[in-house]
Formats: sequence, structure tokens, C-alpha cells
Amino acid sequence: MRFVTCSTVRGPVAGRVEGDVVVLLDGADAAAAASAALEGTHLHETGDTVQLNAAHILSPSVRPSRVVCVGLNYATHIREMGRELPEYPTLFAKFPDALIGPSDDIVLPPEASSVDWEAELAVIVGRSVRRADAAQARDAIAGYSVANDVTMRDWQYRTTQWLAGKAWESSTPLGPVLVTPDEVDHAADLAITCSVNGVEMQAARTSDLLFDPGALVEYVSIMMTLRPGDVILTGTPSGVGFGRDPKLALGPGQVLQTSIEGIGELVNRCTV
Amino acid sequence: MRFVTCSTVRGPVAGRVEGDVVVLLDGADAAAAASAALEGTHLHETGDTVQLNAAHILSPSVRPSRVVCVGLNYATHIREMGRELPEYPTLFAKFPDALIGPSDDIVLPPEASSVDWEAELAVIVGRSVRRADAAQARDAIAGYSVANDVTMRDWQYRTTQWLAGKAWESSTPLGPVLVTPDEVDHAADLAITCSVNGVEMQAARTSDLLFDPGALVEYVSIMMTLRPGDVILTGTPSGVGFGRDPKLALGPGQVLQTSIEGIGELVNRCTV
Repeated sequence: MRFVTCSTVRGPVAGRVEGDVVVLLDGADAAAAASAALEGTHLHETGDTVQLNAAHILSPSVRPSRVVCVGLNYATHIREMGRELPEYPTLFAKFPDALIGPSDDIVLPPEASSVDWEAELAVIVGRSVRRADAAQARDAIAGYSVANDVTMRDWQYRTTQWLAGKAWESSTPLGPVLVTPDEVDHAADLAITCSVNGVEMQAARTSDLLFDPGALVEYVSIMMTLRPGDVILTGTPSGVGFGRDPKLALGPGQVLQTSIEGIGELVNRCTV
Repeated sequence: MRFVTCSTVRGPVAGRVEGDVVVLLDGADAAAAASAALEGTHLHETGDTVQLNAAHILSPSVRPSRVVCVGLNYATHIREMGRELPEYPTLFAKFPDALIGPSDDIVLPPEASSVDWEAELAVIVGRSVRRADAAQARDAIAGYSVANDVTMRDWQYRTTQWLAGKAWESSTPLGPVLVTPDEVDHAADLAITCSVNGVEMQAARTSDLLFDPGALVEYVSIMMTLRPGDVILTGTPSGVGFGRDPKLALGPGQVLQTSIEGIGELVNRCTV
């Protein structure tokens, strides 16, 4: 199944995608719909439908209790940087208000001089889990979506801790759909790409993830209870602007496209 | 004024401390009461009172939208480590469910082999601010409290990013009171101490903070809207267990006491 969150006059509403139509459901967001589906229940239909291409789609999880991010997780990229494969995932955080919808503008902050892209597979949790084993962790995943962990590089590297480059309000597009695990084989081997003004900058496959979605849920759940709607961003492959020679950064008017095979595409215009 | 959050059968309730008595207020927590006071309004009294020493006191902010933490912020400690004074605050995050009350047990996770103390001044935000100037930032502070940023050192240093040592659920005591800025001169020069089983481990003064509370609010507000109830932990002085020779760590049955002059004291027993 494919779920979205629609903006309506009543606020965010969950919807199930059926071809070109969204069937609205009695729930707050796509994450709630997918969490219900994970438990074998289904949110009631409200009776309303909207055309998918006419809907204003929001982030699939509108108010997660947390957003956990992962760095250095594509094995080929780690090796090409001459690094050893890490024993543990590198974890950092975003605050939930960093998230924006799949077609929202990315506002380039006047204080940041180097804003960069990071195409990422997003995992949305559907069940509360703590100290999950591998099977429990995998079974707690409500579905997958597309994110771009847009990063203020100059702020990221002001200190050793990346948060200052990662936690800017309304900087991280997520969406457009949440796809349940059965439809994409738990995102085991999907093409992931990022382009800027139509020029491809990143292209990889999720099979290259060193720590896969289940392993990440298992690891994070050692530390804390993951809850329905929580988001894990699984890291980005090579091809970011900061790693290029010369370095590249996003500028006003540029269009950032981020897509994952079988899930969908983010299209975000950069503005000032 | 001094505010607390009391656990009641109706859930968390704000209270104003008057001597030995807590006057219960129509609000969810101490942060809500102090935020109202900051705006010159006051929460209604419910008509109930409880004896302070009989009350079950919770965290002064029971569900902040964010907890921002600061590292390397006591100048003397930075200099004694032979480091340059940093140009920018080192920021990292906790998730809100890391917070516990001022007398709650600290459960030592079986997965962590080195659990350490970090006495810290906590700042509680009382007004929404974004891109605040220095005066606006200072004026947005609802009050001050005491925290211990209890850290799983082995997990903190598994990778370059500290989150995995800092974000354990129910690990970070905060409280007992939220003291308004007028009562403690914006925490400009208060003694801060930490002891384990009565042995003093940390002793410093908040006047040694490199980035003071107002400067931290100003800096963080460049990136994101700080909201009422948000918590900023301002960093710890020297004397942590990991910095000692031999290194020390918290063990089961030990009692951690964390106090700041003019605010109050946390007393937390370590359990397994």
C-alpha cells in the first residue's frame, strides 16, 4: 500500500493512494495509516477522495517524536574515501520541525554560505519497540519514503558535532508517499538518485547500505523506545556538493529532485 | 518566583513554591507557569496546595519540543585541556524522553559499561523566538534549573557523533525547581557542584561559561524557532569521571547529587 498525508481545511489527513486518486482516511498522517496497516487494522475512509496530482501533500509523518539520522552508511562511498567500514552506525539528530513536505520550497538561510544535498532513504516506524531483536525491528517498520537531508555545510563543520548544520527549521523534505515494506521488499535494492536542475549528482542503490533499515531500528532501539511515526534517515551515498572538486552548493532558483525507485520523488525549489 | 511540576492523579500539574508549600496552578508544568509569568500573566490557582517535601516532583518541562545540549563551555576546563577557546558553541541534541525527574532513579543500561556524570545549568525557554538579538534572547528565558547530562561514554565515543551516548531514554535528571531569571541574576555567577556518594567530583561557577544562557538562545535561534518549554543544557565543567586518572564511572547503588546555588539539588540513585 501507498499512503500520503494531505493538507486539508481540517488540517493534515491520511490518505491511501489508489492509482490517480487519494482515498482520505480518518487519521492524521500517512504514518498513522501505515502503522494501523502494520497491526492488521485499517483507518476508516472518510468518504472523500482527491485527485493525487491536485492534492497538497505534506510530510508522511507530520509530528514524529524524533528524527534519527545516520552518517557514513553507503559502503562504496566509505571505501572510496579511504576509510575503514565502521563497526557502529554514526547517529545524529534532527528536530521534528526540520521536516517539510515533498514539494515545499527549501529556503536557503542568509546565514549559511554552503547548502548541500543528501538524498536518503527514510524509514518510518510503525510500532513501539525497545531492545528489539532483528525480527522485531524489521517488523516494526511501517514503511519507506524519500528524504533529502539538506545540510548547511559551513555550520556543520563549525564544531565536531554536526547538529548545527542539520537542524535548521523547515530544511528537510520528506515524502511524497510512504510505501509499505511488502511493496518494495524492505527497500533492499532500490535505485536512489539526486539531481540539481536536471543534472544527476548522486546515483546509488540501497543494497549498498552498510546498516540496513532493520539493523538501524534494532540498534537505535537499544537506547530508546522508537514510536509510531518516528523517522530514521539512513544516510546518503557519494556525490554531495561538498565532496566535489570544485565544491558545489545549492543556489536560489535551483530545483532539487530526489528519487527512490518504487517509492517516488521529491521536487523542491530553492528560494531565499 | 520558583515553580515546580507536581505529579498528581490528574497528571503533571504546575505549582508555585511558597516556602514549604506548593500552590498548585492551572497548567501542565513549571515551564508553562514560568512562561506565563514572563508574559506578565499568571496561571490560576487550583485551590489545592501540597507540602513541598511530600510532593512528587517531575521535570520542570514535561514535554519540551526539543532539548539542545552544549559541549565544551567552561573556559577554565577548556584551557586546562590545552584547547583553544572555540569560536562557536558545540551543539548536540537529546530527545525529550531522555528527561527524568529530580529524584528519579538513573537506570544504568546493561549495554553501557561507562556511565558518567555531567552537572549542568539548564535554561528553560519561555517565549517563541527566531533570529533573536541579544536582548530578545535573554528576555525569552523563562528560568533556570539543574540538570545532569548523564552520559554513556563508551557509546558516546563509538563514532564521531555523541548522540549515541547522550540520547538514552530516561537518563537525564532535570529539576527540581525552575527559578525565574530575576531571582538568580540570569545565573550569571552561581556555584555548580556534583558529588557521587557524598564525594565532590565537580565544582565550578557559572561565571566561567564561555557562552552564557542569553548567547546560547541567540545562537540556537538562528537555526530554529525556540518555543516555550524548550530546554538548553549549557555544558559541564571539569571533573567528569572519564577525565580522571584512573577513570571513574557510576555504579549500582551510588547516589548522584547535582546542585546549583540559588536553584536547588538533584538527588538520583543509580540502579540496574
